[in-house]
Amino acid sequence: MKYCSNCGNRVKTAIPDGDDKVRFVCQGCETIHYENPKMVAGTLPEWKDKILLCRRAIHPARGKWTLPAGFLENGETVSECALRETREEACATLIDLRPYAMIDLPFIHQVYFMFRGKLLDGTFSPGPESLETKLFYPDELPWDKIAFGSIRSVLEKYCTDIKASTFPFQILNHQHEKPG
Amino acid sequence: MKYCSNCGNRVKTAIPDGDDKVRFVCQGCETIHYENPKMVAGTLPEWKDKILLCRRAIHPARGKWTLPAGFLENGETVSECALRETREEACATLIDLRPYAMIDLPFIHQVYFMFRGKLLDGTFSPGPESLETKLFYPDELPWDKIAFGSIRSVLEKYCTDIKASTFPFQILNHQHEKPG
Repeated sequence: MKYCSNCGNRVKTAIPDGDDKVRFVCQGCETIHYENPKMVAGTLPEWKDKILLCRRAIHPARGKWTLPAGFLENGETVSECALRETREEACATLIDLRPYAMIDLPFIHQVYFMFRGKLLDGTFSPGPESLETKLFYPDELPWDKIAFGSIRSVLEKYCTDIKASTFPFQILNHQHEKPG
Repeated sequence: MKYCSNCGNRVKTAIPDGDDKVRFVCQGCETIHYENPKMVAGTLPEWKDKILLCRRAIHPARGKWTLPAGFLENGETVSECALRETREEACATLIDLRPYAMIDLPFIHQVYFMFRGKLLDGTFSPGPESLETKLFYPDELPWDKIAFGSIRSVLEKYCTDIKASTFPFQILNHQHEKPG
């Protein structure tokens, strides 16, 4: 941030009165501009002992496999976002949505919130942001071609949970995002 | 948003190519400025069959009772934020933090994430943003003086859960924030 979004003057960095963190503060109108993490919501779609992955058509990690997920928009709930992203990226409708995992990514200012869900009727196809959509058995996941560390963590949890036949909601902490 | 935070030129509203939502777009450098919901993290602190509330010293809802909670900052995890807010608002240290509820507030572009936790040693006192901190039995909560609908929902869930002796993680949806 270089300019104030309210008045167009230059911003400076300063610790405001009563605060203990450095913020962008406008040198003209004195507006304090707070910057906060963004939420990403997504799903782990299930169908007859398999899970649905999407191969990314866009950067970053183009060509690698991921779960449907994207940024929460103003005006929608976290579950609405997760269902929307699943429709957009995999042309799939989910039922039985259940909270499954939250992943902190503090170093990139993001929090993922992932649901498990069942495909309504087993139909899916790649949306504009996907090259390919495909069902995988948990023991045949493409571990060497997973797009993000956060998604890898969710898939690892799922492979553990499926053996134990229990799927508790958990928070997964990431100190570093691993490439692929 | 009136001005571009990148170059200081005026922004316009437009639907960018490949998008389906109206965004602020700079008329100079063409940067697209996305606006997303903020996360609020907080706790429901327990001590010997009672729970700790804070009476707000700041607006909005000054003078009303709430649970410790505040905006997630860049660089911290959701649980770190919840513990920090509990220290700041109630000078209290919590152990045994467990995910308890997520509350969608789409109309004000916020998502609350609340944990249950136990006071480490039963000590607490009002921080700068609190007028008073006090332990309440669940059946003696000050229902007519609760600060926010989101906090009211968490407290209502707790009163139900305590009777059933089970505290499942749940998502609570709010269509409208109720005053107090």
